[in-house]
Amino acid sequence: MNWQKLHGRFKIIGCLEHGRAILEWDRYVMMPTGAAEASADALETIEREIHGRVAAPEIPDLVEAARAEDLDPWQEANLREIERRWIRTRAIPADLVAALSRATSACELAWRQARADNNWRAVADKLEVTVALTREKAAAIAHALGTEDVYDALLGEHEPGLTRSVVGPVFGKLRATLPRLIDAAIGRQSAPLIAEGPFPKERQEAVVREVVAKLGFDFTRGRLDESAHPMTAGVPDDTRITTRYEDDWVFSFYAGVHEAAHGLYQQRLPAAWRGQPVGEAAGVAMHESQSLLFEKQVGRSDFFLDFAAPILQRHLCGRPTDTAAWRPGNLSGIVRRVARNLIRVEADEISYSLHVILRYDLETALIDGTLDVSDLPEAWDEEISKSLGVSTAGDDRNGILQDIHWYAGMFGYFPMYTVGAIWAAQLYKAARAANPGLEDAIRAGEFGMLVDWLQSHVHRLGRSAESSLSIMSDVTGSPLDPDVFLEHLRLRYGS
Amino acid sequence: MNWQKLHGRFKIIGCLEHGRAILEWDRYVMMPTGAAEASADALETIEREIHGRVAAPEIPDLVEAARAEDLDPWQEANLREIERRWIRTRAIPADLVAALSRATSACELAWRQARADNNWRAVADKLEVTVALTREKAAAIAHALGTEDVYDALLGEHEPGLTRSVVGPVFGKLRATLPRLIDAAIGRQSAPLIAEGPFPKERQEAVVREVVAKLGFDFTRGRLDESAHPMTAGVPDDTRITTRYEDDWVFSFYAGVHEAAHGLYQQRLPAAWRGQPVGEAAGVAMHESQSLLFEKQVGRSDFFLDFAAPILQRHLCGRPTDTAAWRPGNLSGIVRRVARNLIRVEADEISYSLHVILRYDLETALIDGTLDVSDLPEAWDEEISKSLGVSTAGDDRNGILQDIHWYAGMFGYFPMYTVGAIWAAQLYKAARAANPGLEDAIRAGEFGMLVDWLQSHVHRLGRSAESSLSIMSDVTGSPLDPDVFLEHLRLRYGS
Repeated sequence: MNWQKLHGRFKIIGCLEHGRAILEWDRYVMMPTGAAEASADALETIEREIHGRVAAPEIPDLVEAARAEDLDPWQEANLREIERRWIRTRAIPADLVAALSRATSACELAWRQARADNNWRAVADKLEVTVALTREKAAAIAHALGTEDVYDALLGEHEPGLTRSVVGPVFGKLRATLPRLIDAAIGRQSAPLIAEGPFPKERQEAVVREVVAKLGFDFTRGRLDESAHPMTAGVPDDTRITTRYEDDWVFSFYAGVHEAAHGLYQQRLPAAWRGQPVGEAAGVAMHESQSLLFEKQVGRSDFFLDFAAPILQRHLCGRPTDTAAWRPGNLSGIVRRVARNLIRVEADEISYSLHVILRYDLETALIDGTLDVSDLPEAWDEEISKSLGVSTAGDDRNGILQDIHWYAGMFGYFPMYTVGAIWAAQLYKAARAANPGLEDAIRAGEFGMLVDWLQSHVHRLGRSAESSLSIMSDVTGSPLDPDVFLEHLRLRYGS
Repeated sequence: MNWQKLHGRFKIIGCLEHGRAILEWDRYVMMPTGAAEASADALETIEREIHGRVAAPEIPDLVEAARAEDLDPWQEANLREIERRWIRTRAIPADLVAALSRATSACELAWRQARADNNWRAVADKLEVTVALTREKAAAIAHALGTEDVYDALLGEHEPGLTRSVVGPVFGKLRATLPRLIDAAIGRQSAPLIAEGPFPKERQEAVVREVVAKLGFDFTRGRLDESAHPMTAGVPDDTRITTRYEDDWVFSFYAGVHEAAHGLYQQRLPAAWRGQPVGEAAGVAMHESQSLLFEKQVGRSDFFLDFAAPILQRHLCGRPTDTAAWRPGNLSGIVRRVARNLIRVEADEISYSLHVILRYDLETALIDGTLDVSDLPEAWDEEISKSLGVSTAGDDRNGILQDIHWYAGMFGYFPMYTVGAIWAAQLYKAARAANPGLEDAIRAGEFGMLVDWLQSHVHRLGRSAESSLSIMSDVTGSPLDPDVFLEHLRLRYGS
């Protein structure tokens, strides 16, 4: 009875979250600019309604009473997730929530200007406030969870159960290994043919639609649109992905594949648990593992390019003389090009992790209090010179100012990208081992074998497992194994 | 203090209504079909949140206490509107709300099939239930309002203060006069040249965008999209209008103008009262007066066609030999064509009101209990034979099954169209009298004079006046004057 009561409450919360998800999508994709303020008010009100219900004081008593009832493992897992959410939400005093919200709004705004002006000093003070408040928040959550490491409290916001003790050594191994792999890859590659653009948006969109549908994205329960930053929004039964069209086709194509894979995960979450905490995706890094599995593991492979090349050529090749540029063997040279760059979002598959690890090193030091905000630009330059051999001295726009995350109060988020990349390698290896003929199927445009395997082993689980780490242990034999990722990189980029 | 308390509550209600408005728009314009059920759940939850707050038991005490405070007329009017909404919402027992919701869902569904099959009997029983429950609802509201006439309770849902005693005699006059006007118009018209289509959607959309922007629709606080049924949705700071593109251009063009005028009203409601009841549009008929003023009074005039013809020709004229078809004098023959038809939504400006009055006569008899649902098809055929000289015998699809309204539980709504048409004539006459040079300005594509006048006299008032009837009395000297409408029709269509 108490279980049913909680279930009913979260059904309502799920409905409010559905409304919030569509409104958020609308803000980025549809809304006219003049509606920003009114829409922010509306979202804030819905947010407050959700918050009040998730953090209702009687939840722990209801959870405890419900635990005495006759429950199956999913019902028990739902209680665990309800409690986890309650603890994290209640841990942060209302004053601190408000102060953080004000500070990050001001900081993000200042960052936009500072970045445009390449002027770090215009935002440094505000970032200092944001870091100080984030440390307070992390300490409060750590206290409520009874954990020692305050940075773990931030990691766990995005991926429950993930800790510095797991991530640290793994990142250490990558930090030590990847630079040599970059050398090897650069030494080995030659310049591909480049088909001349620009490629009209309509043609690029036709490519993305065709490929995304082939992957298994269900357009009867989803949409594909355009937005400045590609994203996956909405809810399982109404999954909205976006991409961005540039003059060249590569960005829109791989962003489309990336978001479609997020979308597949969202659409294939357990239907019986819609709106309930246990019905959600396991975590941000697990979500990222899905998108990177399709975008990188599969999407940059020879067998995938065999599938994609004719589609790309059919929609995009304007001149018969360009035909050679659209051959799979040439495309691979374009989409697997390795280079030492300053910018994370433009990085290749190998150096991307070095960008992430740099940020991880700096943000752990910020949260630990061993690095001052005012020393960030120098620390950034020192680290990137060491790991990638490029310098950002005097170029903060392409250094410390390049990412929105910290200015928006997102700490403990960057590691998700590389944990996701490692998990993608582990999952893909396991999928291939379990499915002989997988790569031939993909070459023939049949993705069902891969997607069904992922649904069985990841998507349909929602949050029923203890954590993504336990899912990975069950499915691949290791919670986080950098060697599988390194093996993949060596095979693809090594000599 | 109590006033502030109520104001704060309705600020939250306004935010929830904002969310609802965007979600409803999304359902019709964006949502993939497979999301219908989940989205209906989400909307129902938000609806329930709104209902609970609007009908909170302590509202009357708060209103009474607030009335003792030092208030300006707008604040007082806001209290009046809060109270009106409370009374109407509380009047209907929860059981009846649920029963009506179930009955109209089933009835509307059955209607879709019955209409497709031209099979009245398949829906007659369900309409009988809907009518019986609507009579119960109307009686409950009438009781709460202390009025005698139960049909008035339904009229007042859409246009506060409008009653059968006002509408009845006015409709009687139109019923007696319009048939002769149709004869005169048909006898006088000759066949216009018709430019050959089909006209590509993109070209039609370019026309609508250009004209709608000229009218003053603010695209920084609004959007234009496509949907099966043209509509105006959203909120004042985010007004979303739609049209539908057919092979011919006439439908999308006038639907665009019609919805844009609804949009102008919505965008120009008093900014200081966003989300508060007093900040809303005065009523459905007043809304319709705005759209009909632009679509018919202005939109079918010679001076408007002088403005629109070059735009239409520029975007739509494919062949130089067609040029003559796009001259204003020829276009007027197309857009002012009068004909005796069975279908309301295809009717011309004169016979449209006869279609409305037929429905008014039948629905008042249904609500009074003097007509049985089972006798509707015969009654319909008898009335339309009398008023328009056409017959629907054996053709229920084009008779009793043509409109969704009754099957969806909308009674007391049809009169809004003709009351709106009359008010449009009154308002346009007053606007022209107050603004010498108005028609020359429109001919030159300048609509600011007209729109500003409407904003001053209608839009900016919101619901601060007692009712739309009192606004009309103040602005035009009469609450509802059929003679001004008839005078307009005679001038335009008479000899």
